[in-house]
Amino acid sequence: MVVMKTDAKPKQVAAVRVITEPGLSAQAMPESSPAKIREELVGLPTSVSRSNQTRIPEPYKLIARKRHPENSVVSVDDVKIGDSELTIIVALSNIESREKAFCIAETLHRSGAQFLHYSAVKPPGSPFALKSKEQEALKLGAEIKAQFGLKIVVEVVDEATVDIAERYSDIIQIGGRNMQNFSLLRRAGRSHVPVILKRAVGATVDDWLLAAEYILVGGNARVVLCERGIRTFNEYTHATLDLASIPCVRRVSHLPILVDPSHSTGTAFMVAPLACAAIAAGAHGLLVEVNNEPNSSSADALGALTLKQYQQMISTVRAIHHTVSNGCRQSRALSAF
Amino acid sequence: MVVMKTDAKPKQVAAVRVITEPGLSAQAMPESSPAKIREELVGLPTSVSRSNQTRIPEPYKLIARKRHPENSVVSVDDVKIGDSELTIIVALSNIESREKAFCIAETLHRSGAQFLHYSAVKPPGSPFALKSKEQEALKLGAEIKAQFGLKIVVEVVDEATVDIAERYSDIIQIGGRNMQNFSLLRRAGRSHVPVILKRAVGATVDDWLLAAEYILVGGNARVVLCERGIRTFNEYTHATLDLASIPCVRRVSHLPILVDPSHSTGTAFMVAPLACAAIAAGAHGLLVEVNNEPNSSSADALGALTLKQYQQMISTVRAIHHTVSNGCRQSRALSAF
Amino acid sequence: MVVMKTDAKPKQVAAVRVITEPGLSAQAMPESSPAKIREELVGLPTSVSRSNQTRIPEPYKLIARKRHPENSVVSVDDVKIGDSELTIIVALSNIESREKAFCIAETLHRSGAQFLHYSAVKPPGSPFALKSKEQEALKLGAEIKAQFGLKIVVEVVDEATVDIAERYSDIIQIGGRNMQNFSLLRRAGRSHVPVILKRAVGATVDDWLLAAEYILVGGNARVVLCERGIRTFNEYTHATLDLASIPCVRRVSHLPILVDPSHSTGTAFMVAPLACAAIAAGAHGLLVEVNNEPNSSSADALGALTLKQYQQMISTVRAIHHTVSNGCRQSRALSAF
Amino acid sequence: MVVMKTDAKPKQVAAVRVITEPGLSAQAMPESSPAKIREELVGLPTSVSRSNQTRIPEPYKLIARKRHPENSVVSVDDVKIGDSELTIIVALSNIESREKAFCIAETLHRSGAQFLHYSAVKPPGSPFALKSKEQEALKLGAEIKAQFGLKIVVEVVDEATVDIAERYSDIIQIGGRNMQNFSLLRRAGRSHVPVILKRAVGATVDDWLLAAEYILVGGNARVVLCERGIRTFNEYTHATLDLASIPCVRRVSHLPILVDPSHSTGTAFMVAPLACAAIAAGAHGLLVEVNNEPNSSSADALGALTLKQYQQMISTVRAIHHTVSNGCRQSRALSAF
Repeated sequence: MVVMKTDAKPKQVAAVRVITEPGLSAQAMPESSPAKIREELVGLPTSVSRSNQTRIPEPYKLIARKRHPENSVVSVDDVKIGDSELTIIVALSNIESREKAFCIAETLHRSGAQFLHYSAVKPPGSPFALKSKEQEALKLGAEIKAQFGLKIVVEVVDEATVDIAERYSDIIQIGGRNMQNFSLLRRAGRSHVPVILKRAVGATVDDWLLAAEYILVGGNARVVLCERGIRTFNEYTHATLDLASIPCVRRVSHLPILVDPSHSTGTAFMVAPLACAAIAAGAHGLLVEVNNEPNSSSADALGALTLKQYQQMISTVRAIHHTVSNGCRQSRALSAF
Repeated sequence: MVVMKTDAKPKQVAAVRVITEPGLSAQAMPESSPAKIREELVGLPTSVSRSNQTRIPEPYKLIARKRHPENSVVSVDDVKIGDSELTIIVALSNIESREKAFCIAETLHRSGAQFLHYSAVKPPGSPFALKSKEQEALKLGAEIKAQFGLKIVVEVVDEATVDIAERYSDIIQIGGRNMQNFSLLRRAGRSHVPVILKRAVGATVDDWLLAAEYILVGGNARVVLCERGIRTFNEYTHATLDLASIPCVRRVSHLPILVDPSHSTGTAFMVAPLACAAIAAGAHGLLVEVNNEPNSSSADALGALTLKQYQQMISTVRAIHHTVSNGCRQSRALSAF
Repeated sequence: MVVMKTDAKPKQVAAVRVITEPGLSAQAMPESSPAKIREELVGLPTSVSRSNQTRIPEPYKLIARKRHPENSVVSVDDVKIGDSELTIIVALSNIESREKAFCIAETLHRSGAQFLHYSAVKPPGSPFALKSKEQEALKLGAEIKAQFGLKIVVEVVDEATVDIAERYSDIIQIGGRNMQNFSLLRRAGRSHVPVILKRAVGATVDDWLLAAEYILVGGNARVVLCERGIRTFNEYTHATLDLASIPCVRRVSHLPILVDPSHSTGTAFMVAPLACAAIAAGAHGLLVEVNNEPNSSSADALGALTLKQYQQMISTVRAIHHTVSNGCRQSRALSAF
Repeated sequence: MVVMKTDAKPKQVAAVRVITEPGLSAQAMPESSPAKIREELVGLPTSVSRSNQTRIPEPYKLIARKRHPENSVVSVDDVKIGDSELTIIVALSNIESREKAFCIAETLHRSGAQFLHYSAVKPPGSPFALKSKEQEALKLGAEIKAQFGLKIVVEVVDEATVDIAERYSDIIQIGGRNMQNFSLLRRAGRSHVPVILKRAVGATVDDWLLAAEYILVGGNARVVLCERGIRTFNEYTHATLDLASIPCVRRVSHLPILVDPSHSTGTAFMVAPLACAAIAAGAHGLLVEVNNEPNSSSADALGALTLKQYQQMISTVRAIHHTVSNGCRQSRALSAF
């Protein structure tokens, strides 16, 4: 087993990967160890003396804040995720025409959104499921990018889709269902584009961070986490947004973290309050669903906002982001992590 | 069964209660019906026509916003919970001396906290478990109240403790473990003091709202809800704070809602981010644990803040409350519920 | 704090209780400590040396198998719960007439059921909610007991209901909603009748066992546990029956354990398979709901069986109980706990 | 969209697949619809009239019992899964030598086990991670199969591993982490070998059945389900075995269902009671972990049994299987699904 220094550059890690490739690939994926994260966060269990602690093998290496005390900032051209800037990714559903797409893109651009999650259909019917539509979609995405500077996010579901997405998108997204698809994680680890890694609905924070570790071990250090809720007995939301994961992840890891309030709640009127909450809790940005057909029932089920609702929400979100980031003691407390 | 008009005054409801008392008490507690709240929130299930909807019997009566479109404001002397004011309840743990108690109370008062949750020991070792200490505690509480105007919150666990608490406190609290203790709910319904009803760790929003309904049916309309997290598979917090319950409860009900970030997280460094998130999501106030012995391990396990951490947190919380309440479009959207 | 010997007789514990009563009651209720039970069951966490273990204070005293290696057997007249005998408690819902009640009771008696959980209405509308009906119900129960020897189970919800139930029933039941109603647990601890303690839907095994400990500390050692499911994200049952709790509880504690497959599943066709599974997993008996109006929708929602379904189920259950208890190596392995 | 008759042969479905392949692949994966399964199982929600029901589009097609009233039997050479026979798959961990492997295989064969889940290492370090070891392992598997007739099960994690596994194994397994890896499901749908589909820890029964539907739509009807527990707040098991899923799945679908008590409990002493419970609840077989190094801590963490514990368990399991299958009224009730 090769243990690299914690200040190893991604390139160096990638070099190791190449060496190991032929016969045996680098494996850094321990079983989930729920006890570990708790010990790191809460401190020692009352019954364990501090001297014991030091002997505990750590499950995280490359993603750990201990090894990389500064926040990681993932740059996508001129946009920086994890920095003081608020990151906004807008997912569009049900775009019916070229004209509407451009019209919406212009509004989003003016609102300060930096990323467009553009997919003709949602996974599992992925962008690559219907090949004719997909190419149209990618072409349209390229045009929108050229005109407004919006970066393109594409969801990947297997190695083949990464091959395509690397050419057409600025950042790829691994959805919750594939969070422990290790072949895909390994492929993303060899990619030159940044990766958004969503939390699976059944994943502990440990599982999620270890999946991220997997990508970094592969050589790609540009990973952005995205909280999107966990399955609970709650009956009125699709998933329960776990906002405590934000301070938790920020303490344990140096990776940026976003929140998706649309797919977790699945209901439009809850999106703005939870988007505000996410930023107040310290998230670096949001992934929100916008739909230009407010009355379509399928859109509503996804928690999609109308353009107008989106614009209202963003102004409050920005004010809260400003409050939390600047001038407030809390920000200093946070940076003292 | 007596169905009262929705604009029935608590007094009228209480009158009915008195009539029914001797032989049969008013029973308005249907089994939890998970489907109901979802239908109300999300709209119709796709397979059900709107005409069917109207026939659905509603589980909520007195707590429903439909029947009482304005927010309920619960007044405790000059303090108003559920109004534009931010409500702060501070729970003190481990007060060692009379001097320290006064010193802390003064700081809290200056910070704008209105309520003191004062208990020598925590339930189940309730204020009333150790009777000698309890009387000292209540006496001290009365003195603190006299000097700083802080209102006193006391947790009740059975009918006998309500009898005592009614005399010594300004507001009583029913903890999550007793959320479905129907004898206690009935007794609280006959009380003249307001009630804080915490959510049980295993309770759906439906269960919780129906428990509140129970108190209102008993004749006491001064009920304040308090979200304190639900049990999930998460390994790094005591309970998962369900902040989506805030927009949900505010849409379905007119009752005020607070959030307790201390006991849900159980870890001090998560309290400030989640307190900010709770207010950003629309909560009317907070219940936070403060401890003057920052190094005591038992306090840490409860997520208690030091006085200094508390003061830092409150300033950010107030700024977010201001952002969310005034001048922001979101507040108008919220009031359009 | 008074620590009693582990072989202390309930009488001795009760004596201590009496002494402490006036000023300060015995308090043995630590906060739930999730780590403890895991350590006891699974062995040591990998990172903790064995020498540390011995210093860990144990949360359980009186209920622990360590202190009482033999199975506890709770005798109710001639019936023994926790022994080799299979315990069957039948809860009747919607009994419309005296004749039907006697007819069903006769069939249950012939099937070998020993207990009748007789309530006119279910809690929260408890047996004591509608006082006129309640007295009829208790009188009818007494007659059924006189004729068929069926013991009577009554649910209690507060101290007052225990006072009544002690006179009219052979065993009292504390439902899941009151599992952490400590005033009720204390009162049950002073009772001379045995207690069935159901698990709350949000309770860990630790919470549940500590609630039982509470009753034993009060002086009543005749406690029977009843698993009835926990809240999970599962969409097709009311609660998820946690059958792993059976070997777990039997290893940690000497108390008998029953399973309620009716209220957990909430669906009649799942009751027989899960009743069989519960006995196969080592439960000492069952609590099942029977209804003589198979087509009534409310009964179906409770997972109630018709008399015929019940009789079919019991014959398979008895065969499995026989297989598991006698002649099988597993039984010896179980008794080697 | 092509809707096939419900009695369509897999071959016909495969034919459609081939036609659609070039441009657009068959997509039959609706979003999870929690309400659906509940309606099918429990009957109508109280507020919906029966006439509405008939308009509900059904999420399941090929896996539905409605369309295929008989149990599906998946044949692997002479072994039949889903028939009256009890299916036993044994997973071996930590085989140190060729001799030990043969010795254990002989014992398993004599105990009536039909399948060997043979992997040098467990995924995510999959059989294919360490390529040199893997080939040895597959060769050894082939020899064991030749000598004892044990069929070989291999876990697959991506399309490439399916290519290899098809050549060397009799049945492939998709683990819970890949249950919604749709590229893998599609590939398995094109395979000629049967597939064991484990439930993901965060999957509802709906999610799981829809994943199975995906494989059948692809043309492979030889799918066996395997329950392995869901994530809950329980602290003493790795996952909570959801045995109610057995009657649920058997009612909704014609597919066979196995249970894995080893990985769900993660603790050896719970395996036998839960294995017995699974068969009592109507499962067609078991997947259990056996280890020849009883004292190794890693094995214990996986809930692996020693050979001796395994043999004791199997004899009780067989007796219960016999009781449930033959001569008992319940079996007739079950077959009346």
